[in-house]
Amino acid sequence: MQITQFHEKSFPVSSNIRNAVMDFSEMTVSVVGVVTDVRRNGRPVVGYGISLGRYAQESSLRERFLPRLERAGAEALSDDEGLVDPFRANAIMMRNEKPGGHGERSAAVGAVDMALWDALAKVQEVPLWKLLADRFNGGQADSEVSVYAGGGYYTDGDLDAFRDEIRLYRDLGYSSVKMKIGGAELDEDLRRIDVALEVLESSSHLAVDANGRFGLVDALRYARALAPYGLKWAEELCDPLDYRALSVLADEYDPPLAMGENTFSFEDTRNLLRYGGLRADRDFIQVNCALSYGLVEYLRILDLLDQMGWDRRRAFPHGGHQMALNVAAGLQLSGNESYPGIHQPFGGYADEIPVLDGRVRLPDTPGVGHETKNTLYAKLKQMGLE
Amino acid sequence: MQITQFHEKSFPVSSNIRNAVMDFSEMTVSVVGVVTDVRRNGRPVVGYGISLGRYAQESSLRERFLPRLERAGAEALSDDEGLVDPFRANAIMMRNEKPGGHGERSAAVGAVDMALWDALAKVQEVPLWKLLADRFNGGQADSEVSVYAGGGYYTDGDLDAFRDEIRLYRDLGYSSVKMKIGGAELDEDLRRIDVALEVLESSSHLAVDANGRFGLVDALRYARALAPYGLKWAEELCDPLDYRALSVLADEYDPPLAMGENTFSFEDTRNLLRYGGLRADRDFIQVNCALSYGLVEYLRILDLLDQMGWDRRRAFPHGGHQMALNVAAGLQLSGNESYPGIHQPFGGYADEIPVLDGRVRLPDTPGVGHETKNTLYAKLKQMGLE
Repeated sequence: MQITQFHEKSFPVSSNIRNAVMDFSEMTVSVVGVVTDVRRNGRPVVGYGISLGRYAQESSLRERFLPRLERAGAEALSDDEGLVDPFRANAIMMRNEKPGGHGERSAAVGAVDMALWDALAKVQEVPLWKLLADRFNGGQADSEVSVYAGGGYYTDGDLDAFRDEIRLYRDLGYSSVKMKIGGAELDEDLRRIDVALEVLESSSHLAVDANGRFGLVDALRYARALAPYGLKWAEELCDPLDYRALSVLADEYDPPLAMGENTFSFEDTRNLLRYGGLRADRDFIQVNCALSYGLVEYLRILDLLDQMGWDRRRAFPHGGHQMALNVAAGLQLSGNESYPGIHQPFGGYADEIPVLDGRVRLPDTPGVGHETKNTLYAKLKQMGLE
Repeated sequence: MQITQFHEKSFPVSSNIRNAVMDFSEMTVSVVGVVTDVRRNGRPVVGYGISLGRYAQESSLRERFLPRLERAGAEALSDDEGLVDPFRANAIMMRNEKPGGHGERSAAVGAVDMALWDALAKVQEVPLWKLLADRFNGGQADSEVSVYAGGGYYTDGDLDAFRDEIRLYRDLGYSSVKMKIGGAELDEDLRRIDVALEVLESSSHLAVDANGRFGLVDALRYARALAPYGLKWAEELCDPLDYRALSVLADEYDPPLAMGENTFSFEDTRNLLRYGGLRADRDFIQVNCALSYGLVEYLRILDLLDQMGWDRRRAFPHGGHQMALNVAAGLQLSGNESYPGIHQPFGGYADEIPVLDGRVRLPDTPGVGHETKNTLYAKLKQMGLE
């Protein structure tokens, strides 16, 4: 098995939504496609990777990461069995990259990493979750993964439209929902929370997300108002790098906190754990491999969690993509986000596998399973690689 | 004064040198040019910004930052006097950018920021250092700035060639030199240090730079070997995000430490100061505005230093560019790096202003002074804007 071609393409993700700090009308996504020399049914096996969540990484992929892999040659990318080796690929991509400054490029490398794992699992004709369980988890995997609907953005809609959105998630089979806070005044946000709780089974099925909006004073004000609800978690109440504010929140707010979607490296995760004051018995680490140098780096981060006394069941990846769903199942993490109906066609999971009681069964499709989502696969085929 | 056009162009910086973690043969740089509606001698006044040090930022400039400024329009970019306002420009560029992940994009924004300050000072017909002194420093400025030659990279040359390089810097007027360590074994690095000290006046004129190469154990091993020398400073002995290792080094290593060239935001600098254990009476903060969202963010960082009890004379920008030289003079910082003969034509200062006893006089040329360096100005003119 060799990679014969590396491609990248940017796509717009036109989402008419906003959270507390940004709207998504300009959002773009990089898709990486790697073509292998293995053919099935007369077509080459192609792996795809997607970096949804920050902006597309066109020039770093074209000028740095893909050329480095091309120049290294197939042998340098192969493991001892002649299969593509994402660990070697990671090391090659990171040659001549300086330390620190982990952002942007981490999404580029993450997209390539996803494409390589997808190709590797497809060539071996196994779903990625099974490959990961066999390689890294003693063959143990979860057959279903707990998912929640990431939604509840600020739109121009009123509270009735907001209630309808939460109902839609419930009717789709999601028992838990995450909604945005911090983009309105506290009393309006509390009204929105009350509306969501009219629909959901209990407050432990509702998470809230401030997207890093608050300074410590406002974060504490919100934390005090939110604490009595006993929510599933409160996410990014402060800036992702304000570890001191986070550690104060952990002292003052008893229910679970969640952090990590804007933490893009092993080194930054280590600081989050060292200085953030998070509690290993209840809080959640949401690092998303697709934006964080890929699964190769994420495995290092899971080892770090272990060394620092955190169970892997505290890892709950952000980003709502099929790759993290495989990782959550194959490495037995807590669960995974989903974006039903949002960030289309890149959000959401396999079309024909329903969400039941907030859990989703993993498909047996070889690879990551991008192809199980028709609208996404149609987009990937626009790259013309197969 | 209005900006009528925004341009960007990437250039290669082919440097046949390496430090402990990378070689520079692939390095590229983004140049931003902003064309104003002000004309002098029949030509438009053009401001230039350069992001040397990490890689060029072509797609983020083209897809995000320059279009946001163009769409905002001239009025949104103007201050009350009708001059371009880099603070407003910064806020517009950072719209719809998520928190955290400070790298890459920070160099793009930094290059635009530099171009805007250059244009602003040129239109006002003052050197930037004077504009900064008048606006932000009560009219006080240093007429000369302490500089050191950043060099001593690992090349294929032997110790004689290395000695010649240090002599060259001395003969150019630099009394202080920084050399690389960590790319060879400790005993070889110590031999290189001894060779440099044969040339320089004293060990307090030699700084060493490990470029973040070491884990704590190796950093301590080097620190113990280096301590007796009493060097000017030891720079980036550990990863820029390993604040705990840095704080242990600060406990164990008495002479000055330096850190910050790979710290690209206010939030990351705050963590460096909160957790790195650095000592306000001797250590140096090397944040480089060109890679860190520009002077607008750097002014916030200087305020932070002040709040946290650090004198501005502990700020010693990394990166060796004319912009930071203006900032060092106009805001009365400690000094600035220089790259004589390296990273050409982007390294080094004005052609006709000699370095005397390790100090460089600021030119009176309006703006940043890119035009005082003939080879650099020739490159900038390739953009065809004037």
